[in-house]
Amino acid sequence: MTQTKIIIDCDTGIDDALAILYALRAPNVHIEGITTVFGNTPVEQAADNTLRLLALANPGYDIPVALGATRALVREPGTFAPHVHGENGIGNAELAPSPQKPIDESAADFIVRKANELPGEIVLVTLGRLTNLAHALDQDPELTRKLKKVVVMGGNVLGPGNITPVAEANIWGDPEAADQVFTSGLPVTMVGLDVTLKTRITEEHLNYLNRFGREENKPLIAFMEQSLRYYFNFYREVNYYLGSAPMHDPLAMMVALQPDMVTYRRMKVRVECQSPLTLGMVVADLRPQPTVGSEIEVAIDVDPERAVGAFLSVFM
Amino acid sequence: MTQTKIIIDCDTGIDDALAILYALRAPNVHIEGITTVFGNTPVEQAADNTLRLLALANPGYDIPVALGATRALVREPGTFAPHVHGENGIGNAELAPSPQKPIDESAADFIVRKANELPGEIVLVTLGRLTNLAHALDQDPELTRKLKKVVVMGGNVLGPGNITPVAEANIWGDPEAADQVFTSGLPVTMVGLDVTLKTRITEEHLNYLNRFGREENKPLIAFMEQSLRYYFNFYREVNYYLGSAPMHDPLAMMVALQPDMVTYRRMKVRVECQSPLTLGMVVADLRPQPTVGSEIEVAIDVDPERAVGAFLSVFM
Repeated sequence: MTQTKIIIDCDTGIDDALAILYALRAPNVHIEGITTVFGNTPVEQAADNTLRLLALANPGYDIPVALGATRALVREPGTFAPHVHGENGIGNAELAPSPQKPIDESAADFIVRKANELPGEIVLVTLGRLTNLAHALDQDPELTRKLKKVVVMGGNVLGPGNITPVAEANIWGDPEAADQVFTSGLPVTMVGLDVTLKTRITEEHLNYLNRFGREENKPLIAFMEQSLRYYFNFYREVNYYLGSAPMHDPLAMMVALQPDMVTYRRMKVRVECQSPLTLGMVVADLRPQPTVGSEIEVAIDVDPERAVGAFLSVFM
Repeated sequence: MTQTKIIIDCDTGIDDALAILYALRAPNVHIEGITTVFGNTPVEQAADNTLRLLALANPGYDIPVALGATRALVREPGTFAPHVHGENGIGNAELAPSPQKPIDESAADFIVRKANELPGEIVLVTLGRLTNLAHALDQDPELTRKLKKVVVMGGNVLGPGNITPVAEANIWGDPEAADQVFTSGLPVTMVGLDVTLKTRITEEHLNYLNRFGREENKPLIAFMEQSLRYYFNFYREVNYYLGSAPMHDPLAMMVALQPDMVTYRRMKVRVECQSPLTLGMVVADLRPQPTVGSEIEVAIDVDPERAVGAFLSVFM
């Protein structure tokens, strides 16, 4: 099997962390680099969390980490999400500092350079706001041909949002960037909230990992337990589920590495950037003869047991 | 069985006409009056079509017809829909003129007067823009307690729109009026496009009516055939269905007269009035803990065979 070369763009984040750990342990993946963006947590914290995670997991090869946007393209800086992801972004789990530092290259510069070094080979997996990719597109509009694919965790088409009735956090947090990416001509695959919410990790799954996890993965599993405890409490409070947490970012990562993990429908979409009521909504034209927006690939369904099983299996 | 007292507010309209004919033939209904509004066709044409229909059907009691709004609350007058409903609004079907004239009272005045004469008794069935009802609410805010129920054909919550990806014609045509009505506290039941599209009348149904229709209904059936021919062609062109037409307005009428015709979900909603991309969208807050909008009752599913059967049965 050939290796999938990926760049992960993220705002690490509890479920970003799970997605990164999954990518680190999945077979046939080479992580070319990780770029960070403001979102769940400030961009520096996201980079620091990422570096600590890499040190914990010991990937066995060098994975550069680049800092990206500190704020959205045009909107005023907002607040972060400590109520969801803890003060440090990873559920207040404690990880040892890493000797590795972020590289002296911005996230957008890094994405552009890598896409030009390896044209047609890189799958970019975005787990946060699309600000870094929008900046990269500004620098090199040819990125639309040079990236093999962009898998976006974000949006929602067949279910409600999580920030407003119609908007999901990653799109709502920088709607102009999302609209630019979705209408750029990039080969985008959107993995939205309506699908990721179907895949949930539970305390039982963690117990299972504890029992059957490979020895080398024990520290990773201990970290997951620590950070997920915070996440479980959040999701218990908002009444979504008891004792479980949706695998938003891990599912997008799995879709990037195993595209048959979900079913798809091609849709024309735009992102609402004007009205407060619908800001950040991914407006999909699902009429029989769609005319509005640009066509992207949208995940519409998943077998939750298969997805959770695939996630757990790489640690066992 | 007690009679249901209704006022029909409509922009007659092919499917408005079918809904009116249904109400005229359904048992245990008393039509207190019909008010017209711009929409499918100009308001005067809608009133004239309505009067001609009443003359054709010969209800056996006096049904006043009142003219209403010629334009939306705040938006510039738009165009009508001759491509859907024909030049005369009823698929160019020819009906004899009526000796009856519209009353010297506006639609809003009529609704307010009737609601005060029969407080808590009237079910208002709106088959067009909600402009007349918005004007009536301005005149008498207590209408929210005085109308028994308002059944609205309009909007879409679980499927795409028909004017834009997210907006249905009746709401899109006067979004400010719809938002005012939905958030007024009126007991609103919304029968949206996503549900009405499931109920389709076909040429076969018309053949059936021709064979089994009661003698007194032959002229009504001949009219339906004439006007529906136009509608079928429109729906064939836009590729929704071949040789069938959705019963938008008739279904709303049936829901008003037989509330168990559909299943419901109570939802908080607002109507988008700002952004061109999402203008006229009924934004429903379907999150686990909804916070945005006012609660209304929304039809979410229907048994199409039962609905079509109920429609046909009143003419047989």
